Order: sequence, then structure tokens, then C-alpha cells
Amino acid sequence: MPPGRSRRANMVRSEFDLIRRLQAQAAQPDPHVFKGIGDDTAIIKTSSTEWTLITTDLLAEGVHFDPATSSFRDIGYRAAIANLSDIAAMGGTPRFMLVSIAIPPTCSTTEIQELYRGMMQAGSPYDVRLIGGDTSASQQGLFLNITLTGVVKPRQALLRSGAREGDRLYVTGTLGDSRAGLDLLKSRQRPKLRPADARFLLARHHRPSARIAEGQWLVKHGLAGAAIDLSDGLTGDLRHICEESAVGAEIIADALPLSPACRAYAAARRLDARQIALQGGEDYELLFTVPRSKHVRFERLAGKTRFHFTCIGSITSKRLGLRLRAGTNTTQPLPVTSYEHFLKPA
Amino acid sequence: MPPGRSRRANMVRSEFDLIRRLQAQAAQPDPHVFKGIGDDTAIIKTSSTEWTLITTDLLAEGVHFDPATSSFRDIGYRAAIANLSDIAAMGGTPRFMLVSIAIPPTCSTTEIQELYRGMMQAGSPYDVRLIGGDTSASQQGLFLNITLTGVVKPRQALLRSGAREGDRLYVTGTLGDSRAGLDLLKSRQRPKLRPADARFLLARHHRPSARIAEGQWLVKHGLAGAAIDLSDGLTGDLRHICEESAVGAEIIADALPLSPACRAYAAARRLDARQIALQGGEDYELLFTVPRSKHVRFERLAGKTRFHFTCIGSITSKRLGLRLRAGTNTTQPLPVTSYEHFLKPA
Repeated sequence: MPPGRSRRANMVRSEFDLIRRLQAQAAQPDPHVFKGIGDDTAIIKTSSTEWTLITTDLLAEGVHFDPATSSFRDIGYRAAIANLSDIAAMGGTPRFMLVSIAIPPTCSTTEIQELYRGMMQAGSPYDVRLIGGDTSASQQGLFLNITLTGVVKPRQALLRSGAREGDRLYVTGTLGDSRAGLDLLKSRQRPKLRPADARFLLARHHRPSARIAEGQWLVKHGLAGAAIDLSDGLTGDLRHICEESAVGAEIIADALPLSPACRAYAAARRLDARQIALQGGEDYELLFTVPRSKHVRFERLAGKTRFHFTCIGSITSKRLGLRLRAGTNTTQPLPVTSYEHFLKPA
Repeated sequence: MPPGRSRRANMVRSEFDLIRRLQAQAAQPDPHVFKGIGDDTAIIKTSSTEWTLITTDLLAEGVHFDPATSSFRDIGYRAAIANLSDIAAMGGTPRFMLVSIAIPPTCSTTEIQELYRGMMQAGSPYDVRLIGGDTSASQQGLFLNITLTGVVKPRQALLRSGAREGDRLYVTGTLGDSRAGLDLLKSRQRPKLRPADARFLLARHHRPSARIAEGQWLVKHGLAGAAIDLSDGLTGDLRHICEESAVGAEIIADALPLSPACRAYAAARRLDARQIALQGGEDYELLFTVPRSKHVRFERLAGKTRFHFTCIGSITSKRLGLRLRAGTNTTQPLPVTSYEHFLKPA
């Protein structure tokens, strides 16, 4: 069962439709909820000094992971990172994890232990505690649901809705590595790559990073307008910011941060690395905006950190939609399509 | 796909083993956690005036529900009740729900909408708000994970570990109805029953109650020593109380509260209704203990409520284990086995 990327992409569309419809149904205001459905996490006003973040992710075998190409420890690790990354996108501090798991007859106890080890390993730098969960049988396929809580100071969380025209658009790290790593795993004929490059891409796929420290730093200095984590791919996730903030955006193709390994992979496969960066999912990097008035301070302060930030474009007016600047003076609309449909030789 | 009860029973055993092992692994103390794994919900010390309860349940098609015998609205309703019941067992007030769902290609959007309607309907008496979730594709089978939060005043939650020798053992409502209802759904040759009895049992299966008000009342008056909700069946869940409290227990078979419909069903099938009450799962009634010093006050106050409580036995010393008093002076050990293995004609 190869990970069904295009199937997932189709699913993603109806998922958004469905979630929106249900959101409308359930959208009664509540004095204890600062943010419900529609951001990386919900925000509950639990006390006057600390608000609670809560997020949940359900991963299905054959859709989000494949035991044929990933170890159970890696599957657990990535599942935890997917949730930690949601907390990172809010600028929060992760706290508690609840893990539900539906186990098919084919899974051994050792494999399930490995899965938990991977999850705990991903959470351990942040002292994340496992405080609950549920275990069930599954007739077919392994299903893993993680619920993660976190905390943030009242009114300081980074929202998707905070982008304004004129903001600069930044990302952390490099983009497309995880996708290139997944392609390497899936491809029957592996492209010629230096072993170090292949190892790097596989590690970026199996062991992505959650940008917790970067999110907290943005909150601490009050530098970001909006933020989201890159799980579906840059164009898809940027669209969420644009929709929630009622703005447009322009990405500069040549500004996209690419690792040497991703460039080498694209070259070997005769692909455009920038397209992998635009469409590839599961980078778990942060995408955020910096308001015009804070550009200078951001650059000055960022220069003093160990963080890797890249300006990849800017926020425009809503009527311009989502656009890609490819050459010096040419921009084109940036469609949100699945990776496969979009991938063309460079 | 009939609900795999005996398979689930087998799963339950290894589930407990697994959870215990993982509990040991993850059991670092945390100043913010009052109770982690091992009770109906975890308890987080979120503020000085209110603690947060959090629970999660994963339901799998063919294991916990069967679209062939339940409507999607009923499936959603029961799934929400399973979680509400965990909050009830702590004496808490439910607050926020996060719903993850993995949807197989066979499911329509209308069916998923119905599922959500059922969940919202179960939560609406308590103003439970849907604040988040995740939607995914499933290659086979519908999977539904609900995370529910609630609140309770600091140190007031009812724990499994609070039972002491000499306590009386009580349950709410009647036992075995849900199991009899499920048997009715599954049986090819339906036993002869009055239509009203069949309707009652099916309703108790499809639309169980969460005993939120009863749990809150027990907390308000400080009457209960320990509590748990009945999801796996009376003997299985009582065993949890005994293990967490390091005590034994004796159940009086003739004291078990049985509905006329359940008695009629048992008579028609030539079964012992008391066995259905002992072994049948998913009642979602509360099982709780009342300390010796509070018996009198409990009975006096309970008499003034609309609640239905029945004393079904008492807490004994650990070395006596779990026993059933069947006649006047005979007790026998009460094994925890799956329903099917235990069911004998009366």
C-alpha cells in the first residue's frame, strides 16, 4: 500500500468543504473559546495567565504512512511531529499527549511499542507527557490518533487570520525535502544521488522537525502577523492564511529555500526543485508573515539567532489571489493542485 | 461485519497489558498533572479554581459499531456518549469536543453529516462545543476518534482509586439493556418479545445515557469514594476499581437492577438476565462506592432526587478478590471473561 498522495489530495478538498459545513453548524460562540475550528489548534481560555491549545490528528495506514517504507518508530515520530508542529504554528509550548490506536491483527506488540517509542522520542525535547489514550482492535489497517495540548499566554497565539497587505512572507528551514524523501522511498528506479544527499532527504521525511523554538521566538518578540505550519504543502497552506486573513499573496519562485540535496534530487529526476518546494507536503516548517512596520526589527533580531528564516514573498490584496513570480516581471496564478498533477520537468 | 465482541474481549486483555507497560514507561511525575493514564479521564491542574478533564476514544467499524445495524446518527450519538460517560464518571462538566474521522470510499457526505449530527445531539444538553478535529481518508472501514474535555473543581474528581473496605457498591439505572439490544440486532431469529420491550432495548443500545447529572450530584455532596463508568461490563469495570483501590468486592446477584424488558428478553432466550447484567458492555451507567460513614446520608439525599441508584454489593479486602453472592450464603469467584463464554441458560 503506497501512501496515496493524490488520493489524499482529493480527500483534502472534500475535507475542507466538509469541515467548513460542520464549522458553520457548530459555530455557536462560547465565552471560554478564543478560537475554535479553523486554525492549527483550538484555543481555550483556561485561566487569566495561560490559555490552552489543543489539536488532534488521525493518521491512517496506506494514506499517511506505510509500514513497508517506514519503521514503526519513524511512523510514531512523524505522527507526534505533525501535532507538535501545530503547537509550533501557534507559538505555543507543548504539554500533554493522548494517543488512540486501532491495531490490526497483523501488528505485533513490539511494533506498537516501537510506535510509542517514536512518539515519546519526538516529544521528549519538550517534556511532553503521555497522559491518556485508547486502544482498540482494527479489522484492517493501523490507525493512530494523537491529541496534543499546549499553552500560550493569553492573546499571544499566532493565528492564520493575522496577515495584512504589505506583510512579508517567511518560511523556516528548507522546503520539499520530505516530499523528495518520500519519492525516493516509493521509486522503483532510484535516481543517481550521492548517498549523503539520499540520507539527508530520507531523514527529513522520516524525522522532520517541529519548529517549536522558532514559533516561541516569534511570539516573544511580537514579530509575526499570521502563521501556519506546512503540512499539506506551501501553496495549500498559504491558501489557508489567505482565506482566513482575506488577503492575496505573491511567492517569488527563486526565493524558495532549497537544500542542496533537494536540488540534486530534482536535477537527477529532471524536475523543477521549486515545484517540489511549492507542492510537496509534510515539511512541518512554519510559514509566517511579518508586518511592514516590523521588517527591520525582525531582520535585525533574526540575525542574532540560530534560526533559518527565508523571505519568500509578500501579502497582497485579496483580489490578486495567490500568485507566483517566476521571472523578473512575470507572475502567474498559483493553482492548488495535487503534487502529481503539477510536477513537470524543469 | 458483526461487532466482534469476543475479539474485542481478547483485545481488551492485551490492551490493558500494553497500556500498563506504556504507563510505566511514561510515568514521569508532572506538577501540572493530577491524574494521568489509569482513570476514566486524565486530570490537568489548569487553574486554581478549575481543573481540566480530558479523555479520548477511538471507535472502529466492525469492532465498536456496524453501519448494517446502526444508523450513522446513532453511531455518532453513542460515540459521543462513550466520552461524555467518562466525564460523568469523574463527576465533571463536559465542555469541548474534537472529532477525528477516517472516511472509507464507501461513505457518503450525507452519512458523515449524520454522524456529526448524532455527536452534536448527544452533547447538546450539556452545551458541548465542537472546537476542532481532523478528517482523513481510510482505505477500509470508518474510524472515529473523539477527544472530550471537561472541568471539575480542584481535588473533587471521583477516582477509581478511592474505594475502601466496607464501602457500599452502587450503580445507576439498569444493567444489560444495551447488550440485550445488541443481541436483538444481531440475532437472525428474533426471540418473541413485546414490541415495546424490543423498542426499549434497542433504544438503550442506540441511545444510551451519560450520567452527567448523577456524577455531579455525587461530587456536590461528597458522597462517593470511587467511581467508574460501565463500558466494558460490570465485572470488567469493577475489576478496574478493585485494582486501582487495592480492594476486593462482592456483588449480590439478586440485587442487580434489571429492566422488565431485559428480564423478558432473558426469559425468551432462556438466559439468566443477571449474567447479561454482569457481563454486558456499553451500559454507560456509573458504578460507584459510598463509604461506610456516608451510607445513611447518601440514602436520605438520594431519596429526594429523581436519580435511580441501586446498592449491588460491597467492597471487601483485596485478598477476597471479586466474588458473586448468588444464594443466601454462597459466594463464588467472579471471573472476567467475555460475555459469550459466560452466558449460560438460567
